[in-house]
Amino acid sequence: MWKPDRTSNRPLYQQIASYIEQRISFGEMPPGSSLPSERKLAQQLGVNRSTVMQAYENLRAAGMIESLTGSGTRVCRGESGVAPKQTPNWNRYVESGTFLPNLPLLRRIREALQSGVPLVNFAGGELAPELAPSDAIADIMREHPFRETLSYGDPQGFVPLRVALTSFLLEQRHIQATDESILVTSGSQQSLYLITQCLLNPGDAVAIEQPSYGYSLQMFQSAGIRLFGLPVDEDGVHPDGIRALHKQHRIRMVFLNPNYQNPTGTVMGAERRIEVLACCEELGIPIVEDDPFSLTAMEDAPPPSLKSLDRNGTVLYIGSLSKVAASGLRIGWMVAPHTVIRRLADARQQMDFGLSIFPQWIASRLLESSSFAPHLARLRAALRTRRDSMAAALHRKLPGEISFELPRGGLNLWCRINGDVNDSSLLESGIKNGVVFMPGSVFGAEAGFIRLSYARLPLEEIEMGIDKLAQALCRTSAT
Amino acid sequence: MWKPDRTSNRPLYQQIASYIEQRISFGEMPPGSSLPSERKLAQQLGVNRSTVMQAYENLRAAGMIESLTGSGTRVCRGESGVAPKQTPNWNRYVESGTFLPNLPLLRRIREALQSGVPLVNFAGGELAPELAPSDAIADIMREHPFRETLSYGDPQGFVPLRVALTSFLLEQRHIQATDESILVTSGSQQSLYLITQCLLNPGDAVAIEQPSYGYSLQMFQSAGIRLFGLPVDEDGVHPDGIRALHKQHRIRMVFLNPNYQNPTGTVMGAERRIEVLACCEELGIPIVEDDPFSLTAMEDAPPPSLKSLDRNGTVLYIGSLSKVAASGLRIGWMVAPHTVIRRLADARQQMDFGLSIFPQWIASRLLESSSFAPHLARLRAALRTRRDSMAAALHRKLPGEISFELPRGGLNLWCRINGDVNDSSLLESGIKNGVVFMPGSVFGAEAGFIRLSYARLPLEEIEMGIDKLAQALCRTSAT
Ligand SMILES: Cc1ncc(COP(=O)(O)O)c(C=O)c1O
Ligand SMILES: Cc1ncc(COP(=O)(O)O)c(C=O)c1O
Repeated sequence: MWKPDRTSNRPLYQQIASYIEQRISFGEMPPGSSLPSERKLAQQLGVNRSTVMQAYENLRAAGMIESLTGSGTRVCRGESGVAPKQTPNWNRYVESGTFLPNLPLLRRIREALQSGVPLVNFAGGELAPELAPSDAIADIMREHPFRETLSYGDPQGFVPLRVALTSFLLEQRHIQATDESILVTSGSQQSLYLITQCLLNPGDAVAIEQPSYGYSLQMFQSAGIRLFGLPVDEDGVHPDGIRALHKQHRIRMVFLNPNYQNPTGTVMGAERRIEVLACCEELGIPIVEDDPFSLTAMEDAPPPSLKSLDRNGTVLYIGSLSKVAASGLRIGWMVAPHTVIRRLADARQQMDFGLSIFPQWIASRLLESSSFAPHLARLRAALRTRRDSMAAALHRKLPGEISFELPRGGLNLWCRINGDVNDSSLLESGIKNGVVFMPGSVFGAEAGFIRLSYARLPLEEIEMGIDKLAQALCRTSAT
Repeated sequence: MWKPDRTSNRPLYQQIASYIEQRISFGEMPPGSSLPSERKLAQQLGVNRSTVMQAYENLRAAGMIESLTGSGTRVCRGESGVAPKQTPNWNRYVESGTFLPNLPLLRRIREALQSGVPLVNFAGGELAPELAPSDAIADIMREHPFRETLSYGDPQGFVPLRVALTSFLLEQRHIQATDESILVTSGSQQSLYLITQCLLNPGDAVAIEQPSYGYSLQMFQSAGIRLFGLPVDEDGVHPDGIRALHKQHRIRMVFLNPNYQNPTGTVMGAERRIEVLACCEELGIPIVEDDPFSLTAMEDAPPPSLKSLDRNGTVLYIGSLSKVAASGLRIGWMVAPHTVIRRLADARQQMDFGLSIFPQWIASRLLESSSFAPHLARLRAALRTRRDSMAAALHRKLPGEISFELPRGGLNLWCRINGDVNDSSLLESGIKNGVVFMPGSVFGAEAGFIRLSYARLPLEEIEMGIDKLAQALCRTSAT
């Protein structure tokens, strides 16, 4: 986002006024557009409110904007020109379509992070830059001459990557697949999107763990899916829960995240996997197995994947490099019956004509590189250190106030706050005290939970972040 | 797609049988799945039909598949195991969702191209590998150390690319924009998808040129948009056409492709642009200006873009590197009022968490590289040579049978066939004779047109392709 140049001789208010003038004249803020309030813009630009007031005053004097009591400040509808002009009613247009905006709490977090105010970020569920295999990737780009064709690619994804994935899946997750039943996607997010858009209809009932990452995805609501929560014990969901829901709502699909579940960290037990698969096979309900975390195992490896137990084509398996290499790569995959893969690949062509060759090429080289196994070993060790450091800091700073179980993999600690708190006031208090995290309600949890990611920060900042969290917590409890 | 290994000692039928057995046991072809007919599989694998018959016979004898008269060959529903198993009814699932399959003629073309039979490809509207700036891209990857962060990126796209685009758009298309009003997309296709999904509602009326690339996009039908064709003269669409449609149907948006329109090659006149913009401004109807071809100008540059004339925020401008650098890069952009950009960026987060950093980084380097201008000059010259070579071949081989105007840019010749032909039988006859092209009906044209792309083939193959086309044409007319 644009910021005024503080090294310039030009007064800040003039810089701000001419920036807005430029955006109006470019049509980026068409006639009728609302300007942010003086207070909000001042905050965004990191200037005094009086500076913004002066900038707006100048623009008002020039006849470019007008302030109407009660409805804020807007760009004037110019009377110039010969023919009458009507700006499209963009506010109406942006309310069209089925896409719901992201959840308010998620938007608030993003806004806070973009404001430029320094915040300790326990919210983002991704790896810190130093945990990504950046050197390996830079080496691949520097050392391997890039000679792939630059045409529109195969709708299912770059063939060498699909072939590399068949070995990777077999070795790492005991999943047997031919490259014809693999779809390369732009991360698990796109896999989930394709499934909801192409295999489900509005009104369909879908079962997910409660709490679950799925509740944070407006994508389900946007598609008109009815979500139903499955109770979870220490071994994951239970077949009885699935049966009960199915009886009541005729479940069309079950979404599970069996390894180091987001947000709780739960690992589904080995026996339980067999039972749940048998139950879904009996009922003919497909399972979506969302498995981004299995390779982050910090202790023992997780039990066999549901897909490796599936001989019947019941499981749609989705994986991703986001949590074990780099989320900015945007590479994920799906293993599913061939009819399903073909349908999703065809639909994806309509959305974006498929993935860029570059991340696919890099991913195929990375999976085959001899540095990938050592990278994973380092990653697991680093995550363990961070997890333990966060746990220790919580025990030290918030004994008795927060309780949690140590996850055996994944990127997050799922914390119960012992006491009455309100999610959004806790978040606001966190932001004031310089820290953000995920309130549990984002995942459909009852009040009093938060998710803290230990993966995204430099190790040194974890303790400081927990300090800020402790301050936020004590100030919220006070209100 | 898998092919049997002809150098192996193992009989082909055994290889085929065990390949299918493997896919059945992996759950890729679940119980109840249909197998391709013997004839079709033989064609796909390039073997005799009797070989496939023998493979199927073996699988039948092993109890893995069954053939029922009238309903083809299917994977058996195994009776094994203790609990009853039910495969999800995948055929029903893949019919869910709102995504319509691609047009049958487009699927037929893709299928033919994938079959492995050599075909001269006049259908694909993209650049031949030797026209892409492959060396420049390989240089960028080899020489510039990659040091960008690998986290989830900015929802609007990589900031250095957006900044590079502001200069590029100003220089090349006289479009003034700040980086805050630019959204980087995975090509124009994603821009169009985001617009239809987020700014339009089912039932909305949209006007497009007739014929138009838009008619090939099932995406509009999938979103429930009602498309209405605008008549086009040698200067493009006329305001009267827009007014008439608006009166009748209350048009919500106008999609235009003003430069070297796909498929006709028409360039909208300079005066006409001013008139059309004024008309849409008066009616308050947004224009989507789809401009992938402007930099392919082989003669004079096209007139000013509609966006460069727009002071009011009426035009959503979309561009792409697909037709001037490489379609496999998957980089496009959109310039629009800030409210629109923000809304689309937010929705895209729900679909795929944004674009990979790698193609964005390469694109930003490419746009700023000193080799980009010479690349464009070379590209234009090469396209001119190909266009002229195709035109000459058509005049030589099909005088009087095909007529066309020489396009001044773009990748395609739009040809009228002088005589009665049926689109799909012409396409079939083309495939038999070793050539594919786009039948005009794909673009909503009346019967008797085809689109021939001269950009995708090696120059040497153009003449041979026209020979095959001439054969196809004479054999179709005969029936
Ligand atoms: C359970 C789960 N699934 C899917 C995703 C999406 O990840 P990506 O699209 O980056 O692969 C996430 C990211 O947080 C996740 O936690
Ligand atoms: C007019 C037009 N718009 C958009 C596209 C989509 O191109 P891409 O998504 O590769 O940028 C094409 C491709 O043929 C086209 O011809």
